[in-house]
Amino acid sequence: MLNKINHLGVAVTSIEEALPFYRDILGMNFAGIEEVPSQLVKVAFLSIGESKIELLEPTSPESPVAKFLEKNGPGVHHVAYGVKDIEATIARLVAGGTRMIDATPRIGAHGARIAFLHPKSSNGVLTELCEAHDDCH
Amino acid sequence: MLNKINHLGVAVTSIEEALPFYRDILGMNFAGIEEVPSQLVKVAFLSIGESKIELLEPTSPESPVAKFLEKNGPGVHHVAYGVKDIEATIARLVAGGTRMIDATPRIGAHGARIAFLHPKSSNGVLTELCEAHDDCH
Repeated sequence: MLNKINHLGVAVTSIEEALPFYRDILGMNFAGIEEVPSQLVKVAFLSIGESKIELLEPTSPESPVAKFLEKNGPGVHHVAYGVKDIEATIARLVAGGTRMIDATPRIGAHGARIAFLHPKSSNGVLTELCEAHDDCH
Repeated sequence: MLNKINHLGVAVTSIEEALPFYRDILGMNFAGIEEVPSQLVKVAFLSIGESKIELLEPTSPESPVAKFLEKNGPGVHHVAYGVKDIEATIARLVAGGTRMIDATPRIGAHGARIAFLHPKSSNGVLTELCEAHDDCH
């Protein structure tokens, strides 16, 4: 049902400060920065194997990521798993008793179709399903 | 230098309670439980694509994972990246100014050779290098 870790969303106070660690020290392939206005974040993409690291910098104090940083400091904000068919996966999760934040998919960074599980249903790790173009081959 | 996300270490208060979410709801392949006395944890292994989820349950209040749970509650405790040559990777990181917790590799779960970066050098995410047998082919 899930085919891989699509990405880790890592909350950072500043992409400018965090990027050198991932790009220059760890040597990951940097694939650019995109703004996601719906989440009030700027996202830097780095690839590692079949997965990505997404550095999330809030663009407003109202951003969910700003609230996360206030409470926890920088760290892993969410884990996203790749799926082939997001509607079918949501249906199967809901049938198994899982609560969803997004009962129907919405559009995330890079045009991927995404849906978050409710934290109450995912054991303390904010968990996302992600049907991305690059998972389709 | 790094070839993939080898695993995510997820701190849980109880493997028995957390395992059904990963194994039965998300449908990951469960590969058993191992005790790692040096870290005072019990570890449940689940595979997802080229990576693993490792559920970490403390076996003592002195465990670093018990202290993490006390401070943060359940969540992602560390991110481990696969490397081909751990000594060469450590040498390159140190040359670049990175502080290591483990300047020389030690043995982790499944006999892998591992080394942790110092949190001060890894931007808020506890980061591990992991040279595992299953990365060698």
